[in-house]
Amino acid sequence: MRATFMHQAGDVRVQDAPDPVIEQPTDAVVRVVRSCVCGSDLHPYHSLSAADGPAPMGHEFIGVVEELGSEVSGLHRGDLVVSPFAFADNTCDYCREGLQTSCPKGGFFAAGVGGAQAEAVRVPQAQGTLVKLPKDVDSALLPSLLTLADVYGTGYHAAHQARVRPGDSVTVVGDGAVGLLAVLSARQLGAERIILMGRHKSRTDLGRFFGATDVVAERGEEGIAKVRDLTGGQGTRAVLEAVGHLPAYEMAVGAVRPGGVISRVGVPQYDEAPVGFGSLFGPNVTLTGGPAPVRAYIDQLLPAVLDGTVDPGRVFDRTVSLDRTPEGYRAMDQREALKVLITP
Amino acid sequence: MRATFMHQAGDVRVQDAPDPVIEQPTDAVVRVVRSCVCGSDLHPYHSLSAADGPAPMGHEFIGVVEELGSEVSGLHRGDLVVSPFAFADNTCDYCREGLQTSCPKGGFFAAGVGGAQAEAVRVPQAQGTLVKLPKDVDSALLPSLLTLADVYGTGYHAAHQARVRPGDSVTVVGDGAVGLLAVLSARQLGAERIILMGRHKSRTDLGRFFGATDVVAERGEEGIAKVRDLTGGQGTRAVLEAVGHLPAYEMAVGAVRPGGVISRVGVPQYDEAPVGFGSLFGPNVTLTGGPAPVRAYIDQLLPAVLDGTVDPGRVFDRTVSLDRTPEGYRAMDQREALKVLITP
Repeated sequence: MRATFMHQAGDVRVQDAPDPVIEQPTDAVVRVVRSCVCGSDLHPYHSLSAADGPAPMGHEFIGVVEELGSEVSGLHRGDLVVSPFAFADNTCDYCREGLQTSCPKGGFFAAGVGGAQAEAVRVPQAQGTLVKLPKDVDSALLPSLLTLADVYGTGYHAAHQARVRPGDSVTVVGDGAVGLLAVLSARQLGAERIILMGRHKSRTDLGRFFGATDVVAERGEEGIAKVRDLTGGQGTRAVLEAVGHLPAYEMAVGAVRPGGVISRVGVPQYDEAPVGFGSLFGPNVTLTGGPAPVRAYIDQLLPAVLDGTVDPGRVFDRTVSLDRTPEGYRAMDQREALKVLITP
Repeated sequence: MRATFMHQAGDVRVQDAPDPVIEQPTDAVVRVVRSCVCGSDLHPYHSLSAADGPAPMGHEFIGVVEELGSEVSGLHRGDLVVSPFAFADNTCDYCREGLQTSCPKGGFFAAGVGGAQAEAVRVPQAQGTLVKLPKDVDSALLPSLLTLADVYGTGYHAAHQARVRPGDSVTVVGDGAVGLLAVLSARQLGAERIILMGRHKSRTDLGRFFGATDVVAERGEEGIAKVRDLTGGQGTRAVLEAVGHLPAYEMAVGAVRPGGVISRVGVPQYDEAPVGFGSLFGPNVTLTGGPAPVRAYIDQLLPAVLDGTVDPGRVFDRTVSLDRTPEGYRAMDQREALKVLITP
């Protein structure tokens, strides 16, 4: 089959690879119908060393079940499924608590398993991982359904971990797909004031469509001052950080109200950060978040996607065929595209 | 009057000072009946420069109202009162949310206001700050009532912010007065497993009395391994950190279960700490805590103290008269005493 590999920073290739096969009785093989490029794929696109490549790429997909291991029940060949970016057995203590990303039998797609920017992918723990979609679903809904694999669930995780509630005030740091869907999620949970920090007008316009009430284009101290201006000097009770770089963390610390919550879903590109008396401790600020257990949210988010109440698939503003995936990376890296959909 | 000042690290003196007077119509002057030395007083005892001294000391007290400003209602001369270590108006948005430590009219005793290791103290925002006690209270209860000013409320804050609930597993880092009362608080909130990390047997014995089910004397990697051994390799859902030094934070990171909470009430003696993928983010660990809004907890904790259900005053294992306060500092610094009570 054809599959996408990153050989080193900036060097993405679609090339021949062995067809995935059932390796464990709990596996499935899924033929990919839609996949996409993630903002987090840009981190290795900037930093992967040749020694660490070639790395299989892609962790978001919708597909059709092609083969099933002997221990998988509840799924059939031909089922249309969406997969969380992390696989999990969905039966252990962590999974039952809604923390599928900590499942001892779980892991992440791409690394070690094979990537989803490919014709097909092996899915470990298929029974716990894959979620069946209606077979007759309108193909116009596929982009929105695909966001359930990662970016929508990740934005929702940010808002959920911050315990966003009706009437709440929220700042979202970052106007990438996750940030915009954190806006949508905060709105769904009833937030009244949603300040979106981002400086790409087409993106922040989409953020307004999803529910942002204010947009702050400034960054750093200026951005913090603007959020404080908008909130009577106090900051917002929740800050959803969807970037992962240290300046975004620092902006979150500056924008949060005393007693509030910073909820991070941008994968941190730093190890240490300010947490002392002057940042988190003095004002009793809570820091939460992590890789989203999106499996925990799919059942709950799916109905409004299927009936068109929400349209998270609007984050896709470019489509490429699998062989042109490297162009997708370039377009996202150059900020020409917000998020790139990949068709077979 | 006589009052305690720290002139520089290791140099505590009780000396003459002006009698406190009403400065604002919202003030009270309280004659101190019981005060004490706090573990946090040992931080300047180790580090205060002569240039920053002399500093008035003491922020925990029970006393009798002696004078009242014209705008204070609900209190009378002669009332026996306990005071939180932070004063606050108890009417603003933050106070109504239970975050009195962020009250814009609030502040901390000692710095700027005058310390409570003294014959008398001026209390700003007296109406919002002071809590009346029964006049006929048994004097044997005074030590326990005094813990409501700080250490009991602070231990309780740790458990409350970690949302400790029935059946929970909790690790408490630190066997000082706050750590031991965090044990008591976790037990009151229904924790089933409470692992106390501390290596002073007399203290950890008191911890067992307050509800600790296990004691881990080891520190660092060894201590973490021991907590993991005790919890099937998982760590506990909540870790209450009652020390404030970086190694205690690192121990908390090592001892917490994925999806769990680290709740800090030890005043951090560091600015930056690990918060990246390998520490907090990957396992979706929440970091919370801060200076305890003890005023928010007094009403709730008081009845069980008054009826003897709990006996948090057991943390006091030495009593000195005001003039011998410097001996109290020395005894706590040398770990000869857990917590020192001061009588007039």
